[in-house]
Amino acid sequence: MAQPIGIFDSGLGGLTVVRAIRRRLPAESVVYFGDTARVPYGIKSGETVARFAAEDCEFLCRYQPKFIVVACNTASATALPLLSRRFRQPMLGVIEPGARAVQAVWNGRPIGVIATEATISSGAYRRAILRRLPTAQVVEKACPLLVPLVEEGRDAADPIVRAVLAEYLKPLIEAKVGAVVLGCTHYPLLKDAIAAIMGRDVALVDSAETVAEEVAYCLTNYHLLETAGVGDSRFFVSDNPERFQTVGRRFLAEEIPSVERVTPEEFFGTPRRAPARVEEVL
Amino acid sequence: MAQPIGIFDSGLGGLTVVRAIRRRLPAESVVYFGDTARVPYGIKSGETVARFAAEDCEFLCRYQPKFIVVACNTASATALPLLSRRFRQPMLGVIEPGARAVQAVWNGRPIGVIATEATISSGAYRRAILRRLPTAQVVEKACPLLVPLVEEGRDAADPIVRAVLAEYLKPLIEAKVGAVVLGCTHYPLLKDAIAAIMGRDVALVDSAETVAEEVAYCLTNYHLLETAGVGDSRFFVSDNPERFQTVGRRFLAEEIPSVERVTPEEFFGTPRRAPARVEEVL
Repeated sequence: MAQPIGIFDSGLGGLTVVRAIRRRLPAESVVYFGDTARVPYGIKSGETVARFAAEDCEFLCRYQPKFIVVACNTASATALPLLSRRFRQPMLGVIEPGARAVQAVWNGRPIGVIATEATISSGAYRRAILRRLPTAQVVEKACPLLVPLVEEGRDAADPIVRAVLAEYLKPLIEAKVGAVVLGCTHYPLLKDAIAAIMGRDVALVDSAETVAEEVAYCLTNYHLLETAGVGDSRFFVSDNPERFQTVGRRFLAEEIPSVERVTPEEFFGTPRRAPARVEEVL
Repeated sequence: MAQPIGIFDSGLGGLTVVRAIRRRLPAESVVYFGDTARVPYGIKSGETVARFAAEDCEFLCRYQPKFIVVACNTASATALPLLSRRFRQPMLGVIEPGARAVQAVWNGRPIGVIATEATISSGAYRRAILRRLPTAQVVEKACPLLVPLVEEGRDAADPIVRAVLAEYLKPLIEAKVGAVVLGCTHYPLLKDAIAAIMGRDVALVDSAETVAEEVAYCLTNYHLLETAGVGDSRFFVSDNPERFQTVGRRFLAEEIPSVERVTPEEFFGTPRRAPARVEEVL
């Protein structure tokens, strides 16, 4: 495997980013880590998310990535400045690409942002959008149920999904937003249902494509771009590889051939104790 | 503080058990730990839950508990045999008390069990019920959305809660169950909505009262019962003490005066690194 792009998320959501990167950059190899033992991040404090995200990056660093993508909105919103100080690789989060994508479609009407509690309360999207569009009105709404709904395997056609979305999106409809930022990597899977509620003249902004474009730009800039051949992918999780494989194929839009489980001992690098099996811990 | 009863859960749910124990045994002191940095347990593998539960118990052991209550159905279902081998304190989970409670109300009709994915797939309730009632028909249904719904602060009056419950409870209604075991410590907060859907002749079995009764019995048996004075309570969490305090008062049915946050270094006992602040990790 050539020096890969390292990508991590709290769980499955980041696979929508992997999909976009693989389409845009088929020659690149990818190493993905999903922290499924500690998912979700979106209901946890910034400090805890920063700590988990640093451990996720440390794990990826074993595979000597040339570039790291923080494919988790919550970690991007709360931990990116700290991560970029600590790790030497060039690094990209998903918030700035999201703000850039919304700038491209802005029509002067208010901009809606839907995301996890932690992302919304960080104010990261609001700041990133206002830096580009200082006169824009930003309407934010935390949507804590959407991640569990998607993780349960429900899709845009599900009546519960539609009822929950109708409730969450109400303040955005009332504010007559012209665009909605899908500020969580799980949300692209509910795009059809969100579009049905918001109407045809509201643009839905999914940062995955912009992230892929930005990764291509950065790799070119750093002379790190792979141009020939077909890249390889490896997937690691901290728990439940079978579940990741089953639910993950909807996110990746293709089969995931194999998922490797990382034990806490491997994950944390320096083992606190080094038991081979859980029975020895207990 | 006299030697306390140690109680842990993945998060907030175990407070319904604390409430029942405090009412039944007001002279007892309680130390509670909620693993809010890694919540929820119900979507994770048995091995990971066992590992987390062992770490939770280890933390409680610093307060020299005379008795440990595993106030988490998922941990009770997947980790109790391992925990009871590893820790010397007498220990009680919530599954056996739940099965005992359903036995007391059984009318010959099928028995419904609603719980997290991990609890249902462990088969622990089915086994515990069939051991007592070998001819009973047990209808199990995993309800992954109920924990996030309750954690978001929604209650029985919420239309989304009612829609989700109507869907989950359908197979139990079709099977004409005579009782429903609330196999997750979060579910008692949705009791009214579940009762409205199931109808008046279906008994709802909440193990919290039975757990409190069983703790009283065990403490008497071991000559550990506190009979005079008023017990003290301390609450610890691994993340988000403010959120725990705010949402937790609905579970405890009283104010939580203070919640202490435990850092991973304190929590894991032997620090891997010993930074004072997250910036030093990063």
